[in-house]
Amino acid sequence: MTRVTADQGISLDGFTAGPDQSHENPLGVGGEHLLDDWMFGAADDNAAEVEAILARKAFIMGRNMFGPPEGGDWDEAWHGWWGEDPPYHAPVFVLTHHERDDLPMDGGITFHFVTDGIEAALDRAREAAGDGEVGIMGGATTVRQYLAAGLIDELRLHLVPLVLGSGERLFDDLAGLNLEPVGARHTPLVTHLTYRLS
Amino acid sequence: MTRVTADQGISLDGFTAGPDQSHENPLGVGGEHLLDDWMFGAADDNAAEVEAILARKAFIMGRNMFGPPEGGDWDEAWHGWWGEDPPYHAPVFVLTHHERDDLPMDGGITFHFVTDGIEAALDRAREAAGDGEVGIMGGATTVRQYLAAGLIDELRLHLVPLVLGSGERLFDDLAGLNLEPVGARHTPLVTHLTYRLS
Repeated sequence: MTRVTADQGISLDGFTAGPDQSHENPLGVGGEHLLDDWMFGAADDNAAEVEAILARKAFIMGRNMFGPPEGGDWDEAWHGWWGEDPPYHAPVFVLTHHERDDLPMDGGITFHFVTDGIEAALDRAREAAGDGEVGIMGGATTVRQYLAAGLIDELRLHLVPLVLGSGERLFDDLAGLNLEPVGARHTPLVTHLTYRLS
Repeated sequence: MTRVTADQGISLDGFTAGPDQSHENPLGVGGEHLLDDWMFGAADDNAAEVEAILARKAFIMGRNMFGPPEGGDWDEAWHGWWGEDPPYHAPVFVLTHHERDDLPMDGGITFHFVTDGIEAALDRAREAAGDGEVGIMGGATTVRQYLAAGLIDELRLHLVPLVLGSGERLFDDLAGLNLEPVGARHTPLVTHLTYRLS
């Protein structure tokens, strides 16, 4: 069966985004350090984890991770945060309440917009992924919904040694969740933690 | 120079104690899992980390970790949470606002009560430890004070794969703190993370 995984960059104090998220600061003030430094920095210490993320055969993301905010102007041809040629090469299913036609990108991937909920999006992503993995990309609200519904097999936290102080917390409203540690590896910029969910 | 280290059991959502701390639940409801299971459980998967904690040559703890609560009745001969023969065998300096005579325990260690602040307690602990390590034991308030003052050389988080939902957070009010990951090891019950502070 298709494995469902989620990766989240997270601060020591549990935030997956800083405060005041906007188009200029999609991950909030300071939140860019949760991903950019280790994923897109010069050092290849974290190449294995980045490669694992990009190897997924289908992705799911929330509407804010794609953008613009709910009710924003789709006609401005906003193509997501990742530019015309996103680094991942597999279909992306975007959770939204706004119908929109499929959006093919220059790099060969297509954004699909799903308006009938997280399970429907996962069904379509599973079908697209086949024997590959489905990756829940975020943001925190989306990962939290899938965790609460028991639909994630493996959670990979990329723990960045910063204290942000405010922002969006991954584990709010998930009290009682039990995870099994199955991996831990540190590099100078981040510690990669892998958990299996039962 | 004497190295100053702190160990904290911490939940995935950043709590070092659960809600409703009391004499019956010194670590709050659910908080006992942050220490008991991996420190005092049957498996010896975590023996190296437990041994490192106990090898310190002097300890510092907050008044709530010793007990009873501030203003409580010292005359009841409360000897701390650890029984008459604590597992550690080195002097313990307890931060408090209440003067109290030294309290020697059957196991050969002595509790010293320090009323003139965290730096005075650290000076006394350093002197007692000599070339050994000083261990800041907790609770979170105490560790936070030492972190904010830049007095900790190494922080060891024992990340327990539980989501507590509420309680006392270690990293509150420490925004901007930067740590360097220098170790990570997982066992079935806990993931041990070591950070150096600059």
